[in-house]
Amino acid sequence: MKIIIVGAVAGGATVASQIRRTLPDAEITVYEKGRDMSFANCGLPYYLGNEVQERNDLLQASAASFKHKKEITVKLYHEITAVDTDDQSVTIYDHLNGETSTDHYDKLILSPGCQAIRLPQLQGSDISFPVRTLEDTDIIEQHIEKQNVSNVLVIGAGYISLEMVENLKHRGLDVTLLHRNERLLKTMDAQFLPHLTKIIDDQNIKLQLNDEVASIDGQAVTFKSGLTSTYDLIIEAVGIEPNTEFLQDSGIELNDKGYIKTDAFFQASAQNVFALGDAIETFYRHTGEKTTIALAWGAHRAAAMIAAHLAGDRQPFQGLLGTNIIRFFDHAIASVGISEQEVENYDAMQMTFNQYPHARYMEQAHPMHISVYYRADNRQILRACFFGKQGVDKRVDIIATAMINGMTVDDLKDIEIAYAPPFSSPKDIINMIGYRAK
Amino acid sequence: MKIIIVGAVAGGATVASQIRRTLPDAEITVYEKGRDMSFANCGLPYYLGNEVQERNDLLQASAASFKHKKEITVKLYHEITAVDTDDQSVTIYDHLNGETSTDHYDKLILSPGCQAIRLPQLQGSDISFPVRTLEDTDIIEQHIEKQNVSNVLVIGAGYISLEMVENLKHRGLDVTLLHRNERLLKTMDAQFLPHLTKIIDDQNIKLQLNDEVASIDGQAVTFKSGLTSTYDLIIEAVGIEPNTEFLQDSGIELNDKGYIKTDAFFQASAQNVFALGDAIETFYRHTGEKTTIALAWGAHRAAAMIAAHLAGDRQPFQGLLGTNIIRFFDHAIASVGISEQEVENYDAMQMTFNQYPHARYMEQAHPMHISVYYRADNRQILRACFFGKQGVDKRVDIIATAMINGMTVDDLKDIEIAYAPPFSSPKDIINMIGYRAK
Repeated sequence: MKIIIVGAVAGGATVASQIRRTLPDAEITVYEKGRDMSFANCGLPYYLGNEVQERNDLLQASAASFKHKKEITVKLYHEITAVDTDDQSVTIYDHLNGETSTDHYDKLILSPGCQAIRLPQLQGSDISFPVRTLEDTDIIEQHIEKQNVSNVLVIGAGYISLEMVENLKHRGLDVTLLHRNERLLKTMDAQFLPHLTKIIDDQNIKLQLNDEVASIDGQAVTFKSGLTSTYDLIIEAVGIEPNTEFLQDSGIELNDKGYIKTDAFFQASAQNVFALGDAIETFYRHTGEKTTIALAWGAHRAAAMIAAHLAGDRQPFQGLLGTNIIRFFDHAIASVGISEQEVENYDAMQMTFNQYPHARYMEQAHPMHISVYYRADNRQILRACFFGKQGVDKRVDIIATAMINGMTVDDLKDIEIAYAPPFSSPKDIINMIGYRAK
Repeated sequence: MKIIIVGAVAGGATVASQIRRTLPDAEITVYEKGRDMSFANCGLPYYLGNEVQERNDLLQASAASFKHKKEITVKLYHEITAVDTDDQSVTIYDHLNGETSTDHYDKLILSPGCQAIRLPQLQGSDISFPVRTLEDTDIIEQHIEKQNVSNVLVIGAGYISLEMVENLKHRGLDVTLLHRNERLLKTMDAQFLPHLTKIIDDQNIKLQLNDEVASIDGQAVTFKSGLTSTYDLIIEAVGIEPNTEFLQDSGIELNDKGYIKTDAFFQASAQNVFALGDAIETFYRHTGEKTTIALAWGAHRAAAMIAAHLAGDRQPFQGLLGTNIIRFFDHAIASVGISEQEVENYDAMQMTFNQYPHARYMEQAHPMHISVYYRADNRQILRACFFGKQGVDKRVDIIATAMINGMTVDDLKDIEIAYAPPFSSPKDIINMIGYRAK
C-alpha cells in the first residue's frame, strides 16, 4: 500500500509512525513544505523564554532518523500544491530546486496544519514575526540576540500571546500586550478576566486594550488610538487559519473557514483521503456539534485511529472536548467543553465556587475558582473553566473524564478524589460543585 | 426528631452540620469521649513538622460555635458505654464528673472512629505515643520541646508512619523507621518498594526492617534482633482498630474485626441506627466486595447522604474506591481500587508504564511510574498505583473518575487530558496505558 502524508509536524509525523506499526509493509512518504519535521511547537515559547535550554530537545525526529529507524521517507521543503482525487495523485513543488512533480497514493492523509494570520499593517516589517514554526522561533531568537532586544509588543490574546508574554518577561524583556478588544483569552470564562488582568498588572506588563496597530515605520508603531511607541520586536499572534489553499480545486470539502470536513473515521469527503490535526473540522464529544480544535491531543488520537483503521480495526472517533490549559506565571487557566459563547445556545445553568485546592491550614494555599455550565434539562455538563495557582490541571482533567462519561453536575458529588492535606480536601472543589448545584 | 451522634470528629461533626441543614428543627446531641471535636486529624503530622504553623488552624469548630451557630449540643469527655436498640437509648459516662446517665434517640448515628493499636512491649513507656488525636499531638509536641528530642523511632509502615517520618525529618530530627517485615506501605504496589526505599535512603533515614521492639527500659530499646539503641521519642503507628467495644452487647452487628456493618444507606443492623466514618464496613464501588477504608472522603460523603436520607431523600451509596495519596518528601504515592493482595482473587492482567508527567524538554521533568490491574474478562480496571514527583494526584483522580464510570483499560486512550508543556504530554501516561494494554 502506498501512503502519502501531507505535513510532517505533530499530526503527520505521528500518523506516519503509527502506520509503520500497524502496516509494516506500507510504503510511506511524507511531504513537508517547511524546513523542519516533528518539532515540538507547543514548546517554542518556552524555548524563547529559556525554560527549554536545549534547542535539540524540541526536535523529536529527523528525516534521517525516520528513514533509518522506520523506513519512512520524509521530503522537506516539498509542498503539495494540488490533489487529484480521481487520479489519486498529488502535485509537489520542491522549493529547493524549483521543480514540480507528481506522486500517486492508495491512501492520502492530510495534516497540513494551520498558519499564523499576519496583519497587513505590519507587512514588510523586519521586526515583526509570528511564532508558529521552529523557523519562526530561530528568527526571533536571533533577532533578540543580535538586536539586543529589550522591549516587545505582543499582539493578540490567545494561548500563544499569553505564553509569549510570560516567557519574554521571564527572559527579562519589557512586554506590552496589545488586543483589539477587552476579551482576553476567549477559552476562559469572562468572569475570570479581573483575575487575569491582575496577574498582568502584578507582573508589570503593559496592557493596551481596545487598540490596534495602524502603521509601522522601522521600529515606530502608530496605533489606531493615536498613541505611538517604538519596539525592538513585535510578536504577531492574532490567530490561525488552515493551510488548505492547495485543496481548493480538489473536490475535498472544506467548511466555510477552510477547515477540512471529516467524518467519525477522520475520512475527508473524497475516497481514500483522511485528515487530522489543526486543519480539520471535527465534533464535540458531548454535544455532537461541529468544531475546530487546534490542540495536540486530538491529532495524536486521530493518528492512532487512522493507523488502526488502515490495518482493518475501524472504530469511530467519539469526538473531542477541547480540554485545554495554559500556565500564566504562577497561575494556570483551564477549560473543557463548548465555549462560553456556544453555551448561549443552550438552556444552561451555571454553578461557580471558590475553594482552596488543598487543606486550608497548609502553607501556600491559594483559592481556586471554578465555573461549571450544565444543561437545565438533563443536567449534563456543557463546559467548565478553572483559574488558580495549584491543581487546576487536575480539576480540568477530572471534569473531562466525567464529561466523557456523560456525568451530570450532580454526579460530581460521587467522584472520590484522593485526599491528603497537600493535595485536596475531604470535599474537593469538584465535589462541592455537585453539592451546590441546584 | 431527637438525634444522637456518637463521636464529634470528622464523621460525627460533619453529619451533625449536614443534618442541621436538612432538618432545621431536629434536636441534635453529639457525644464525644475525647477532649476535642472536629479537629483535622489528617493535619496532625504536618503540625508536628511545623508545616502547619497555627495549632488553631487544626480546629475547625468548637462546642461553643456549634451551639451558637448551629444549635447543636456537643458534649465533650462524654463516652457512650452502651446502646439499647430496643429502648432506643444510650448510656453515657461523663469522664469529668464520673457520672453515668441515659439519653433517648429517634435516630442514632455512630461515628466512633478508630484508635491506634498500642504495642504491649511499650506499655507504660513515657516516651512512646500514638498520633491519632489532637491530644496525642499536643503531648508529642510538648515532649519534643521539653525533652529536647533529637532522635526518634517511628514504628509501622503505613500512611501515618511515613507522614511522621517526613515531618519529623523536616523538623530536623534523626529518624529511624522500624517495620516488622519488608512490606512498606501496603497501599502501594510492591514493585515500587525500591523507589520508596531509595527516598528513605536519600533522606538519611535509618530503615530497620524485619525487626520489632522486644522491650524498653527508659529510653533504651532492645529489639528482637538483639540490637539495642536509645531514643528520645517513639511514635507508635502500627495500625488502627475500631472504637466499637461499647456496641458488643447492643445487637448491632459488627464484622469479625469489630467494624460496624452497614448497608447502602449507611444503616446498621438495628432500626434507626446509622453509622459512618472509619469504624464502618462498607463496600467497593467497582467490585461490590466488602471493605473498610479509614479515609475522609467516604465519611464526608456518608454524612451528606445520611442527612439527605433523614430528610426524605433516600439514595443508595454507590460504594468506595479507596482513592488515597501520600506525599513523601518530594514524591507522591497514590493508589485506587482493591489492594494488590485482593487483585489475586481475580483473573487479572497488569500494565505498567513509565513516562514524564509533562513535556520531557521542560525543566524538572521526572518520570512517573504507573501500574494498572484490570480484569482479563471485561477489561475493567480493578486497581491502579502511581509513584512520582509531579502530577501523581492528577493521575489517580482521573483513574478514579474512570473507574466510577466502569471504563475499561482500553477506554483510557479516549481520556482527553489538558495538554500544555508544563502539565502533560499529547499522549499522557494515562492514554499510554490504554494504548499499551493488550
